[in-house]
Amino acid sequence: MSEELKKTETMADDGKVKTFNVVFNVEGKAVGKMRNEIKGQMVSPVVDEVFEMATDEGAAHGGDMTAPPPLAYFCTGFVACLMTQIRAFAKRLRVEVGEVTVKAHIEWEARVEGRDPYTSRPVAFRLDIDLDSAAPFEDQKRLLDAAQKGCFVEATLADPIPVQHKLLIDGEYRDAD
Amino acid sequence: MSEELKKTETMADDGKVKTFNVVFNVEGKAVGKMRNEIKGQMVSPVVDEVFEMATDEGAAHGGDMTAPPPLAYFCTGFVACLMTQIRAFAKRLRVEVGEVTVKAHIEWEARVEGRDPYTSRPVAFRLDIDLDSAAPFEDQKRLLDAAQKGCFVEATLADPIPVQHKLLIDGEYRDAD
Repeated sequence: MSEELKKTETMADDGKVKTFNVVFNVEGKAVGKMRNEIKGQMVSPVVDEVFEMATDEGAAHGGDMTAPPPLAYFCTGFVACLMTQIRAFAKRLRVEVGEVTVKAHIEWEARVEGRDPYTSRPVAFRLDIDLDSAAPFEDQKRLLDAAQKGCFVEATLADPIPVQHKLLIDGEYRDAD
Repeated sequence: MSEELKKTETMADDGKVKTFNVVFNVEGKAVGKMRNEIKGQMVSPVVDEVFEMATDEGAAHGGDMTAPPPLAYFCTGFVACLMTQIRAFAKRLRVEVGEVTVKAHIEWEARVEGRDPYTSRPVAFRLDIDLDSAAPFEDQKRLLDAAQKGCFVEATLADPIPVQHKLLIDGEYRDAD
């Protein structure tokens, strides 16, 4: 992020409500057997550097394991987003934190019926958090609560919106929900 | 994934319902100013290779931009998971796909009130999907619907579960929800 975000956050110090939007544009291309190559960029509140990431699957899932699987990226984003907000908010909330460590257990169930493709559902998202802090439990929990509300991933899991899908048919994107 | 998953999927061909769990264990360590170093591993249905990823933030958010931000990883996991299931299920559903491309617009709003840390919420998750397929819209949509139900990330956004948090206090993890 940048000076623009800093300014936005500072501007709210007068007690008024301010908002800013965080926007990522991403393009994924399927290459090889099961590899995906992703290029993306944060375009708001500031235009950030382009990032490039790749995913793949192991042999039994039809891939060549040239890169970690997609869920590895999801898990990293989920854990790191909360960790970032913990450190970002610690100073403002005056809760001292040291070497923050988070251990996560993230579990889904896939259900296979007959010859249909499997369906999936989340089973357990558990985070064990060590703030390396001498602050009382109540203060650490106050910081954690704020970090959860500010963490874009946790806020999405707590109150998601429908994903909108369009399919390119004969040169035009058509609603597919 | 591996032979074990392949076997599990095959076993359901007799019409019975089978399930398998997909589990990731992840450990994140906060280092530097805002950098996080993540080590993780899929441990079910098979034990996969360890992956290592890093996140950081730009200068205005207090970081050194040594790695992409956490949300870049979330966006990659989200888009790549669906793309993977599209290709994984295309053969079984007999819908031909070519060079699959997905463009995503992923947007959140952050709200700042007074001196409190900001809170966030999802605003738009839009996927424009090109299956590079001559199949009729209905067949492409059937494949997309199956991929959404099998995509662990989309399934989580469609029907999330509460994230459980514990804080390490005096050497013991204590519920913090």
